[in-house]
Amino acid sequence: MNFSSNLIKDTVEAFAALPGIGRKSALRLALHLLEQPEEVTTEFAEAIQKMRTGIKTCKRCGNLSDDDICSICRDPARDDSLICVVEGVRDLMAIEDTQHFRGRYHVLGGLITPIEGVGPADLTISDLMQRAALSETKELIMALSPTIDGDTTIFYINKQLTERGIDVNVSNIARGVSFGGELEYADGVTLGRSILARTPYKS
Amino acid sequence: MNFSSNLIKDTVEAFAALPGIGRKSALRLALHLLEQPEEVTTEFAEAIQKMRTGIKTCKRCGNLSDDDICSICRDPARDDSLICVVEGVRDLMAIEDTQHFRGRYHVLGGLITPIEGVGPADLTISDLMQRAALSETKELIMALSPTIDGDTTIFYINKQLTERGIDVNVSNIARGVSFGGELEYADGVTLGRSILARTPYKS
Repeated sequence: MNFSSNLIKDTVEAFAALPGIGRKSALRLALHLLEQPEEVTTEFAEAIQKMRTGIKTCKRCGNLSDDDICSICRDPARDDSLICVVEGVRDLMAIEDTQHFRGRYHVLGGLITPIEGVGPADLTISDLMQRAALSETKELIMALSPTIDGDTTIFYINKQLTERGIDVNVSNIARGVSFGGELEYADGVTLGRSILARTPYKS
Repeated sequence: MNFSSNLIKDTVEAFAALPGIGRKSALRLALHLLEQPEEVTTEFAEAIQKMRTGIKTCKRCGNLSDDDICSICRDPARDDSLICVVEGVRDLMAIEDTQHFRGRYHVLGGLITPIEGVGPADLTISDLMQRAALSETKELIMALSPTIDGDTTIFYINKQLTERGIDVNVSNIARGVSFGGELEYADGVTLGRSILARTPYKS
């Protein structure tokens, strides 16, 4: 791409460095900003700067937050007895969007992945143990990816709970064929496990 | 979408206001920036701010430029005798990318569009007349969209040249079926005109 302006070139390159934005789209975004009033660009730049410098990690659950304790942990209407354990903030957001969960969260910050050198100490598992030991906590819902790393992490957390004598229910989110999906397109592992893990029919 | 952080929400909304970026992509971009070193966000914000406040319009051709005269107009290696007349900067960039043109440009800033109240005075046509009258100018290449507005604009510019007695060649970019396109998928108007405007076969 030939640029007669370095100012445009720098912006196009900054946009194109973002995931999923190619150079053609980046150019379109840069030219779009040039067509808008100057305030639009100023507000845009300020929003991302403020976010990047102001964002905190919730001291309780590990969620991204504007304050030391996030708005979900602060919400008095939510159920303290349920803690939904997730790998990262994206998963937390996806579950919040379903509006099917009104308990609290715990963000692990990853999964135990020996092959990449990520061990239990790199995650917020000891914080989770402290929260699990609180009297109000009744159940940990493990909402981790159905992968080997996810299963390893669930196994480790269970073992830690047992070793520390923490009496709390542990559940997994349901795994099986997707709702609305065509059975023939489900992958073999999922389909096989969904038969083994079949549930009684309730009419 | 539920946000537990207003800082993230503001950034997502700023990204989602850009063309072609939905809220899911905007969230991915915001979270991506949070995962990068702080300098990445700073450089990104500074690039767009500098572009927006620093960009100029080339006093000669109307191209976007870092200086009063753009780098294409300043380039001594380019051919002064050819001026390629385009509607906007996007068209100029597209032609530059072909690397098939080494003359100068003239950006009209639009097309004559009576239905939207855009008349000749809203465009840089009087500047173009001054440039066309220069002794070095031999040809104006009209690289305008093959639409009614494009044709109206070409007609008006031709008329102005004649009225002012400016002796310069005027050409249109070739119009016809696209290279590599299948004939049966070409639209009827293009196909019809491409037959009327057929060129002799040269072996």
